[in-house]
Amino acid sequence: MSDPLVLFMPSGKRGRFPRGTTVLEAARRLGVYVESVCGGRATCGRCEIEVQEGHFAKHKILSATEHLSPVGAKEARYAEKRELAPGRRLSCSATIEGDLVIDVPQEGAANAQIVRKDADNRVIERHPAVHLRYIEVEEPDMHHPLGDLDRLKAQIRKDWGYNRLDADFHVLCDVQKTLRQGNWAVTVAIHHDEEEDAARIIALWPGLKNEAYGLACDIGSTTIAMHLVSLLSGRVVASAGAPNPQIRFGEDLMSRVSYVMLNPDGRQAMTKAVRLEISRLVDRVATEGGVNRSDILDAVFVGNPVMHHLFLGIDPTELGGAPFALAVSGAVKARAADLHLGLNSGARIYMLPCIAGHVGADAAAVTLSEGPHRQDKMMLIVDIGTNAEIVLGNRKRLVAASSPTGPAFEGAEISSGQRAAAGAIERVRIDRTTLEPRFQVIGSQLWSNEPGFAEAIAATGLTGICGSGIIEVIAEMYLSGIISEDGVVDGGLATRTARIVSQGRTFAYLLHDGEPRILVTQNDVRAIQLAKAALYAGTKLLMEKQGVERVDAIRLAGAFGSYVDPIYAMVLGLIPDCELKNVSAVGNSAGTGARMALLNRSFRREIEEVVRRIEKIETALEPKFQKHFVHAMALPNKMDPFPKLRQQMELPPCKALSEEPRRRSRGGARRKAEILKPRRRCTGQSGKES
Amino acid sequence: MSDPLVLFMPSGKRGRFPRGTTVLEAARRLGVYVESVCGGRATCGRCEIEVQEGHFAKHKILSATEHLSPVGAKEARYAEKRELAPGRRLSCSATIEGDLVIDVPQEGAANAQIVRKDADNRVIERHPAVHLRYIEVEEPDMHHPLGDLDRLKAQIRKDWGYNRLDADFHVLCDVQKTLRQGNWAVTVAIHHDEEEDAARIIALWPGLKNEAYGLACDIGSTTIAMHLVSLLSGRVVASAGAPNPQIRFGEDLMSRVSYVMLNPDGRQAMTKAVRLEISRLVDRVATEGGVNRSDILDAVFVGNPVMHHLFLGIDPTELGGAPFALAVSGAVKARAADLHLGLNSGARIYMLPCIAGHVGADAAAVTLSEGPHRQDKMMLIVDIGTNAEIVLGNRKRLVAASSPTGPAFEGAEISSGQRAAAGAIERVRIDRTTLEPRFQVIGSQLWSNEPGFAEAIAATGLTGICGSGIIEVIAEMYLSGIISEDGVVDGGLATRTARIVSQGRTFAYLLHDGEPRILVTQNDVRAIQLAKAALYAGTKLLMEKQGVERVDAIRLAGAFGSYVDPIYAMVLGLIPDCELKNVSAVGNSAGTGARMALLNRSFRREIEEVVRRIEKIETALEPKFQKHFVHAMALPNKMDPFPKLRQQMELPPCKALSEEPRRRSRGGARRKAEILKPRRRCTGQSGKES
Repeated sequence: MSDPLVLFMPSGKRGRFPRGTTVLEAARRLGVYVESVCGGRATCGRCEIEVQEGHFAKHKILSATEHLSPVGAKEARYAEKRELAPGRRLSCSATIEGDLVIDVPQEGAANAQIVRKDADNRVIERHPAVHLRYIEVEEPDMHHPLGDLDRLKAQIRKDWGYNRLDADFHVLCDVQKTLRQGNWAVTVAIHHDEEEDAARIIALWPGLKNEAYGLACDIGSTTIAMHLVSLLSGRVVASAGAPNPQIRFGEDLMSRVSYVMLNPDGRQAMTKAVRLEISRLVDRVATEGGVNRSDILDAVFVGNPVMHHLFLGIDPTELGGAPFALAVSGAVKARAADLHLGLNSGARIYMLPCIAGHVGADAAAVTLSEGPHRQDKMMLIVDIGTNAEIVLGNRKRLVAASSPTGPAFEGAEISSGQRAAAGAIERVRIDRTTLEPRFQVIGSQLWSNEPGFAEAIAATGLTGICGSGIIEVIAEMYLSGIISEDGVVDGGLATRTARIVSQGRTFAYLLHDGEPRILVTQNDVRAIQLAKAALYAGTKLLMEKQGVERVDAIRLAGAFGSYVDPIYAMVLGLIPDCELKNVSAVGNSAGTGARMALLNRSFRREIEEVVRRIEKIETALEPKFQKHFVHAMALPNKMDPFPKLRQQMELPPCKALSEEPRRRSRGGARRKAEILKPRRRCTGQSGKES
Repeated sequence: MSDPLVLFMPSGKRGRFPRGTTVLEAARRLGVYVESVCGGRATCGRCEIEVQEGHFAKHKILSATEHLSPVGAKEARYAEKRELAPGRRLSCSATIEGDLVIDVPQEGAANAQIVRKDADNRVIERHPAVHLRYIEVEEPDMHHPLGDLDRLKAQIRKDWGYNRLDADFHVLCDVQKTLRQGNWAVTVAIHHDEEEDAARIIALWPGLKNEAYGLACDIGSTTIAMHLVSLLSGRVVASAGAPNPQIRFGEDLMSRVSYVMLNPDGRQAMTKAVRLEISRLVDRVATEGGVNRSDILDAVFVGNPVMHHLFLGIDPTELGGAPFALAVSGAVKARAADLHLGLNSGARIYMLPCIAGHVGADAAAVTLSEGPHRQDKMMLIVDIGTNAEIVLGNRKRLVAASSPTGPAFEGAEISSGQRAAAGAIERVRIDRTTLEPRFQVIGSQLWSNEPGFAEAIAATGLTGICGSGIIEVIAEMYLSGIISEDGVVDGGLATRTARIVSQGRTFAYLLHDGEPRILVTQNDVRAIQLAKAALYAGTKLLMEKQGVERVDAIRLAGAFGSYVDPIYAMVLGLIPDCELKNVSAVGNSAGTGARMALLNRSFRREIEEVVRRIEKIETALEPKFQKHFVHAMALPNKMDPFPKLRQQMELPPCKALSEEPRRRSRGGARRKAEILKPRRRCTGQSGKES
């Protein structure tokens, strides 16, 4: 009779094991990560598994709970004391007695999007760089006068096996007291980030310690977002966000770099500011999660290159001009104490690699999260800020570039522009006949022509127009025939409506005739044309590098990407034509990438390897970029008259399309059903009269 | 025609290499450490070698300077700019053109005793854990936007080859500026302490940096001694010593441990005190050597377990009682910044392993320096303090123990005792007939019966009697018949001389009848008997473990060991009988061991391995210890009536013997020729009358 066959899900790893082998041991031998702190003592409960019952014909397995050994004394004692959910068993105690399909619970999955599926249905498992180990240490023996730490290390090696094991310096000072407090039983935290690398004891506690936490933090130029995550279950315990306090030194990246260049202590001031805010966020998530700061042992940070440098304390001046040299592009590993983050004394930090001088660790995190390198589809990832970071590719090949979009998409350089904040216009519709506008303002779900709108925005007022609002109003102006294909506001319409306002030699569209008066000027249109042309030209360059005419999927990352409506982005020609259902906003994608790197060190190796092989295209050095840029100035683009989009907007009728719910909405607001009715240019003709 | 044969001295490594191979390359392939910072650019001059001319019949080599390529352009340029001593060549430029015997200069050798020979004539080469590497880095390239640090690392790997190379966090913040200052050429300091371990960039400078320094520091309970050493030549640049400021918390080790137990912030206060004093010593040696503190990159510390713990910031309380558990016994590696030592930000520290709870890193350093494990002779190493640390063994086997001698040898528990300091009596002679004493005082080279003595000691005065003085006076009292074999002061002699003074039921010897009045009391004799019995019993125990009746060589380490006269130590029975010529004081041996570990990382591995295999004997747990102790109370010992010593003292006449110069002298004082005339007990008889 051959040994039973055991299949572990969701990894799908399988193998045969002699009867009597514990499930934990089988998992280990197959390289399936099952958490265990107590090392098989049936006390920590971290190694719970479930048996899937049934006949799995494809795998030739008849799996049944009876194929596990009955609950023994130790396991029963645990179930009594700590509660074992029905169907759950402790894998350190349950032994294999027949064929089994074992489910390793991935608690983080539903909650935190940690388990993501790529095209291959690959499921991601947890394998953090910091883990807890419960150790029972021999008492001191005068015959063998090994030091406390040395006996502890020897026991860890014996119980868990590490090639090389060192201890952080601060551990030396704690080890005696902790061993005695725990009556020679302690839990150690071990940092072990690479297979071949040395493992290090970074912290220790008396007795059994059953929980440890990590941070995943996305340092945006505008917003810092943080998640507090259990390293043992993957659960997101608390999340918080705050404005980046560096805004007071400069609204956008380049003005912050200038600040450093002009002020001798500018770099220090900004580094201090961002670290302080991060420390405050730690307080918030720790309080919300009921977690002690000293139980936070690992932290992953992502950010664009300037944020990356300023957070680490590196002068970002070089990033302000060619050749845009990064001080360090590879992943950065350090101790949280080096950055004075006030976590556990032994806590580590990890920053994802930067792709290039303008394509940062945030873009790497989005890449890790969206996984173009894990699939065959040609995926375009666009993260829009002052520069657009663009990654295009699939399993075979990845290319990346940044395009100098300027800050227009962020509301700068726009006459009534502002950052996305309460009071800003974010959605605009223009009646194709009357050319009358209606709009939505951040903070309210009402359209401006709906009853109660004035009251709804009373608290914040109406303050300006943000990036997504600018995109929509200009796209609507184009669809309504107010601006021509080459972006000229049609002054002839002034005779039909007071919404068209003369401004010397050019005309503007009066979006709001109140306080404040909001105009969309010819210059505003030009600014958006320049920005979108830069973005599109960069994308086009990468498509040429890949030798493709079309992309299969588009991911819009970052704050702007979250709020912009993909339809309008496509109408205006920010992004190339694509099936609408394959276009999605992935606003929190950088944060997700950070969480993945936090919870599984394999993702660190994966993104390090991916970033190494991404081909970096410097748009400024590519002669074709200028040509693409000029062509992309037109509305939508001379190169890409969005046949897919047009097709979808006409057949089936546009209504169905536009009713598709937004993938991500601010404040739970849902876009009302409405009709995008392109009046003239949907035919591709350039006629301009109605 | 076969390839030329090249022999490197002093290592003796040899091999054949094709003509045209550089000498540096040949050395590397043979694993001969030849320094090179610039990596073969003929600019650093660190790779100088010399050719030994002549016919080396034993090696079948006819070596001649013409067997090296002629001086080329690069080498000539170097010689012009930097001066190349006659006969010296740069091994990176000179190529092999015929058979050669190459001398790799060991500059540290003569100066600093770094090169030590053991019984096998083995010569120790330099191979420090921190080395400098000059690197020319590629400029940033927008097509390949690798970070500055990443390009630097890539170039280091390419030029010098490291498996894994990381950088200290602080390097991230310096790399940009330094690369640009050096116009893309920098010198990096790399810490690479173990073959398989990751190397780390710990510091960098613009352009070529040609010198770096390390510290070797022996933290004694009484004195801290420090050497500043060039890591590139091995030369000792400066040395300094200072009293351990912890003395104000407690004279001896146990009183310092008590201080910690009784004072909540005692540990911190003592840690701070010793680190502050070490920092002051760094200032002194740096100033004396004309060296910047930030050029100090590595530091090796040794000390007994209590000093070791307090320096590292570890509570030493556990060392105050059984089982005398060390917090850490293995070698400790840390960053100097962890201990706030104010060296280069990336500087490392290394502390040698401790052997047992009472046998510390200082004993390990002495073992490393004296090398019992490198020879066949049975060597006894004794380091006397409050506890005597004893190591006995040879290549095959090493055993170690500590014996509770108490502080009598340090002058404590002795009625007129004091630490070895100016004003203390350190040498004593007693006339065998008149029983009149004469003595020498620390700070003067005159005997007390010589003209000018009073004036010579006027500055310091006469303050007491130190350890070596006590040993001598009691040995002399024994040799003069004042005390019996069982240590009783003979009151009967009071009738012959006023030097014998009644003290109730016991008698004392009046060593100095002035201010102060110095008596050697019966209690003093008893205290020394107890101390020496403990020491001898420990030694005897180890000899039994080794199964030997005699030892071949004795090394007396530490301050007491430096000052005590081996003859008197043997007369009194502190140490077992041995050929006098094989007994030597090695007072600076711990410092030498520290320097060895500083200059060659192989010594770190060597002592780590040796300490692991030393068998630790706990005297308190050995039933025979008590028996040996009782037997060793007699003068000299019931077990060991020093036949060797007696033989040497009688044949040839004692005079020759006692004229042998002292191996180590304080203040350059040389022992005057004098006669040790044992009056009665040299015959081994126990008769007590004259």
